[in-house]
Amino acid sequence: MTRIDGRTADQLRPITIERDWSKHAEGSVLISFGDTRVLCTASVTEGVPRWRKGSGEGWVTAEYAMLPRSTNTRGDRESVRGKIGGRTHEISRLIGRSLRAVVDYKALGENTVVLDCDVLQADGGTRTAAITGAYVALADAVRWAQGKKLIKGKSQPLKGTVSAVSVGIVDGVPLLDLCYEEDVRAETDMNVVCTGDGRFVEVQGTAEGAPFAREELDALLDLAVKGCLQLDGAQRQAVGG
Amino acid sequence: MTRIDGRTADQLRPITIERDWSKHAEGSVLISFGDTRVLCTASVTEGVPRWRKGSGEGWVTAEYAMLPRSTNTRGDRESVRGKIGGRTHEISRLIGRSLRAVVDYKALGENTVVLDCDVLQADGGTRTAAITGAYVALADAVRWAQGKKLIKGKSQPLKGTVSAVSVGIVDGVPLLDLCYEEDVRAETDMNVVCTGDGRFVEVQGTAEGAPFAREELDALLDLAVKGCLQLDGAQRQAVGG
Amino acid sequence: MTRIDGRTADQLRPITIERDWSKHAEGSVLISFGDTRVLCTASVTEGVPRWRKGSGEGWVTAEYAMLPRSTNTRGDRESVRGKIGGRTHEISRLIGRSLRAVVDYKALGENTVVLDCDVLQADGGTRTAAITGAYVALADAVRWAQGKKLIKGKSQPLKGTVSAVSVGIVDGVPLLDLCYEEDVRAETDMNVVCTGDGRFVEVQGTAEGAPFAREELDALLDLAVKGCLQLDGAQRQAVGG
Amino acid sequence: MTRIDGRTADQLRPITIERDWSKHAEGSVLISFGDTRVLCTASVTEGVPRWRKGSGEGWVTAEYAMLPRSTNTRGDRESVRGKIGGRTHEISRLIGRSLRAVVDYKALGENTVVLDCDVLQADGGTRTAAITGAYVALADAVRWAQGKKLIKGKSQPLKGTVSAVSVGIVDGVPLLDLCYEEDVRAETDMNVVCTGDGRFVEVQGTAEGAPFAREELDALLDLAVKGCLQLDGAQRQAVGG
Amino acid sequence: MTRIDGRTADQLRPITIERDWSKHAEGSVLISFGDTRVLCTASVTEGVPRWRKGSGEGWVTAEYAMLPRSTNTRGDRESVRGKIGGRTHEISRLIGRSLRAVVDYKALGENTVVLDCDVLQADGGTRTAAITGAYVALADAVRWAQGKKLIKGKSQPLKGTVSAVSVGIVDGVPLLDLCYEEDVRAETDMNVVCTGDGRFVEVQGTAEGAPFAREELDALLDLAVKGCLQLDGAQRQAVGG
Amino acid sequence: MTRIDGRTADQLRPITIERDWSKHAEGSVLISFGDTRVLCTASVTEGVPRWRKGSGEGWVTAEYAMLPRSTNTRGDRESVRGKIGGRTHEISRLIGRSLRAVVDYKALGENTVVLDCDVLQADGGTRTAAITGAYVALADAVRWAQGKKLIKGKSQPLKGTVSAVSVGIVDGVPLLDLCYEEDVRAETDMNVVCTGDGRFVEVQGTAEGAPFAREELDALLDLAVKGCLQLDGAQRQAVGG
Repeated sequence: MTRIDGRTADQLRPITIERDWSKHAEGSVLISFGDTRVLCTASVTEGVPRWRKGSGEGWVTAEYAMLPRSTNTRGDRESVRGKIGGRTHEISRLIGRSLRAVVDYKALGENTVVLDCDVLQADGGTRTAAITGAYVALADAVRWAQGKKLIKGKSQPLKGTVSAVSVGIVDGVPLLDLCYEEDVRAETDMNVVCTGDGRFVEVQGTAEGAPFAREELDALLDLAVKGCLQLDGAQRQAVGG
Repeated sequence: MTRIDGRTADQLRPITIERDWSKHAEGSVLISFGDTRVLCTASVTEGVPRWRKGSGEGWVTAEYAMLPRSTNTRGDRESVRGKIGGRTHEISRLIGRSLRAVVDYKALGENTVVLDCDVLQADGGTRTAAITGAYVALADAVRWAQGKKLIKGKSQPLKGTVSAVSVGIVDGVPLLDLCYEEDVRAETDMNVVCTGDGRFVEVQGTAEGAPFAREELDALLDLAVKGCLQLDGAQRQAVGG
Repeated sequence: MTRIDGRTADQLRPITIERDWSKHAEGSVLISFGDTRVLCTASVTEGVPRWRKGSGEGWVTAEYAMLPRSTNTRGDRESVRGKIGGRTHEISRLIGRSLRAVVDYKALGENTVVLDCDVLQADGGTRTAAITGAYVALADAVRWAQGKKLIKGKSQPLKGTVSAVSVGIVDGVPLLDLCYEEDVRAETDMNVVCTGDGRFVEVQGTAEGAPFAREELDALLDLAVKGCLQLDGAQRQAVGG
Repeated sequence: MTRIDGRTADQLRPITIERDWSKHAEGSVLISFGDTRVLCTASVTEGVPRWRKGSGEGWVTAEYAMLPRSTNTRGDRESVRGKIGGRTHEISRLIGRSLRAVVDYKALGENTVVLDCDVLQADGGTRTAAITGAYVALADAVRWAQGKKLIKGKSQPLKGTVSAVSVGIVDGVPLLDLCYEEDVRAETDMNVVCTGDGRFVEVQGTAEGAPFAREELDALLDLAVKGCLQLDGAQRQAVGG
Repeated sequence: MTRIDGRTADQLRPITIERDWSKHAEGSVLISFGDTRVLCTASVTEGVPRWRKGSGEGWVTAEYAMLPRSTNTRGDRESVRGKIGGRTHEISRLIGRSLRAVVDYKALGENTVVLDCDVLQADGGTRTAAITGAYVALADAVRWAQGKKLIKGKSQPLKGTVSAVSVGIVDGVPLLDLCYEEDVRAETDMNVVCTGDGRFVEVQGTAEGAPFAREELDALLDLAVKGCLQLDGAQRQAVGG
Repeated sequence: MTRIDGRTADQLRPITIERDWSKHAEGSVLISFGDTRVLCTASVTEGVPRWRKGSGEGWVTAEYAMLPRSTNTRGDRESVRGKIGGRTHEISRLIGRSLRAVVDYKALGENTVVLDCDVLQADGGTRTAAITGAYVALADAVRWAQGKKLIKGKSQPLKGTVSAVSVGIVDGVPLLDLCYEEDVRAETDMNVVCTGDGRFVEVQGTAEGAPFAREELDALLDLAVKGCLQLDGAQRQAVGG
């Protein structure tokens, strides 16, 4: 079987990671998973939220949003509606949790990093591209903060690397890195966040059509782990590592 | 190893399912998973949201909320703050998706069922208790609507049963149905929604501490499936089936 | 004349007051006036709002809400609409004022008690049931705080007891403790809050149909005072006093 | 005893009612109770809210607000805070109910009148001045609508007149029409809305300090009825009746 | 050509400035530009917003709003809608900037003045009337604060005077101080804020119909400067200067 | 005098206009004025807002926003704060008005075009870059709609071209196209929107420091008109015209 865009079932879309996209942010990455383009900026500020003051520990959080016409039909702005939708909330929380999984708060010290992931163009997999790009922006921001002596210790604030990919079952076949058209047709849809050593940070699988069996779940997990390892490679290449 | 409350690793807390708790709702269930108590009501209305009109298909949706003092320390009311938090949004969406997985929209006809899951007392597992209870309330509401001839067809609007349970790794040991104290200490936390025949509707696993390995994930899934089968039994018993 | 549910004009519905309903709250009461069921929890925290700091005086406040399907037809959640309705605001303020009428702020010390009154099932008289139940929850919370030495003085923080009942004129006849069906048909509707010694804390009478005469007002007040004295008895019995 | 401003206990402040204050509104009144000044406008529109369409009946509603510096210290604008406070909600609802008590919806036909009561300067009794002024604005608007043939029938849309006054017990003495300074010191505070024939539309009494006895309530009601009859006279004089 | 109301092209409407309109505010002015009536109050408080503390400098800000029925057809209240509209935001900001242009923050000391400009009746030019009236209210408030020794220095907090007027091209003719009917028909509409010595604080010109040429812009600016000088005279007369 | 970035007083920053930046929008432009980068998308939908239905005329509107870290320090998201700030409102309205000035609604037919202008990186002049870029996106969208026969008539929906530039007085010298650092230091700041034939659509000048004289205003207008003509050239070049 060949996919809509000619890929094999276990093939990622072309991945590009452009660092230092913005002149202001301490870390900034424009990441593409095919036609999905997400601008990820990392903003460092000294100090932490009130509930964490005096702990000696830092904080990392994330916000995700889509530009109104990043999608095929224009969506209303959440700022105009006056509230954030459930999907936005959910993805912002997922990105934050995923990055915090590799952060050593003690080593970060009482600094806060906010990751803003703004989808400029959407074609499926925006949350996984956001996590993958945000990790690189975060790593750049941490290096910046070390250079500025905001982070003083010797131990590294990042305990590992993180990337994410979507997988799904389309017409009975497990596929890696779904584009929008595949995503819409998928019976089962899963987002998997892995560390660079192939362990899991987050697994979110949903039956869009019929419930799925354990073997299907297993096949999807295998595919996702392979995809994340390739993304890990792309991240390393981007940072010249 | 014995757990805080004396259970074995693969043992559920005492489950109670009290039907017809409310005189107004078409289906209403007060469900307990140990000290966690959730009131689930199902409200049936003729007609569907605007975007679905004329399709001949029904709709099922859910809203989850916690009473301010259902928890150990009082939380602010979301109505007073003027917005719904990310966690609430996320769980409401999870409950809705989980139930829709077993709904045959055509058989339901152009009727809407809203499931309200209000946590009266929280001790871990509120979302899984909500799903498990809401399924019973939904089934009662469907029967009511069939009795009232709102649902006219012969095919059943519910294609299967659904229940949910949390699992997690605490001190390296996979445990079933975490209470709050265990949940706080868990390194990995997973919520699993299954159909009565042991297939998956939703799998959401999160590394709270260190990332988790594939074998750990597998052990948790095994445990969750066992738990859901027991919950399925409790549901059947409650409806006298 | 016999009423819908067989009561005489001056008869309360069956009253039940179940204390310690919740494991978390410092005081918690599930109160029923017939089919009206309200969960009242009292949450104690050390300290007072900013505007009262350093005064040596405590604070008591209340929030009222209805579960969406506590009523005959489902109402939208105020948290989802993003704002609190006028009726909710009004009743929350009424409950707070009613309880504060018997509080000695000095004796309470710089502690805050929040009363949450959540209507689980509504059949008329929800605000009066809420006040009557909240008083018992407040008394339990005060005892708890005295036991914990949060309240240290010798003088009692509660200067009296408080209960409330609705009265109204239906088909020209003054009735005590209206159920929903009676409430809808009432020409005049009054809520009365009394102390245990029969004095008034709050009187709110409204002409739903024709304006009412002084004699009608007098008859309603007589009925309400009698009802409150019976409720005072039920409160005493519940606390074993 | 003489009052702060030299009045006797049963004396109203100087009342002025200036009609046609605004060139745009169908009815507009600037009413003063002493230094309290409220601008009341009545806006007539053809048609009724959705839930009333086809009933042949009209609707009357009210909104109350205070200018930010109508009070001694500036209050935040509710539009800037993004929500309406409980007190504002409560008073808007009270004004609406009070006026609806004398409206014959059938005679009004499917027309809507919105009464806007904006406090330009506050010195106690703003809600009672608002009701008293709004009645005159409403009567003018009804006449306008009759002249424009929006209201076609022969029966009068207003079944009676309505006015309102505050009463309270200050230093043990029942007083009529409290100014702000008296209101702050009152042990008991009551707002009473009467029809021109001395019957009650609304009675709202609150113990600000100690609970009040039946005799006190009776004395306040007597005083309020007298006050309303004088206000009724002022209304009649203003409309040249 | 004669205008709707008989004025010449370069003639202002009758201007009235009534000081001390309110008993509470430190400065209060009811200003009329023809049928446009705006109540401007100046509220002085000691201290400045957080971001300005310790600077030794004061702050001046403004809020503009229209009463719902100040216009020909009733507008919704922004407090009820839960948000401020773009036009309101824009005008509030314009008024604040215009007044700050003549404020010496050092001389004002760490005091804040809030100008509230509430339109009681609208007939075109509400923002320019607001600026012109708010200046007088501000000057009165500054004098009050000097009298109360809140402002202690010898240098004057107001470095000049400010007034504003609208101009526009109607049927090809440049006109001064447009009333509503003219404003609606204007091809070009401009609001100009000047100091008493004829320099510009703010110039906002908008092509409502066809874009306008430089000569038209010049003619409008000439007209506006003349109008502002007359308004400056009216302000001086009002303060007896 | 040489400017910060080496430009002469009447020199624009490097302008780039990249069309078809997005695959989804009917028109999309990434425009740069030096380091200021704004993504402008034009979304076409059949039909018009309710208040314009049946008029045979179209509608054009705009929304402006900044990404949180488009600026030197991160700003809060307006969606998270739950409301749009005054500056955002003001600029959105300015962009909409500016584009509507060259739209022939009749020729557009009952179609709506929404222009979204999202600032990806800010360095002064974001609103003028937005207008200049949005015009190109709008022109592309109109061509698209003509190709799709959504726009059927022969007359052109765009009656002219529009561009915008900022000018200001820095250290007494009138400068064209201010970058952020210059903007902060400007005594007077003006945004000018012109049509391609050098007439004015919008002129907004503000004294940031001292009020400005007529000669200064004249010098700024001269400079702005020159700048807009160059921008008009850049727009033509971008569309190959």
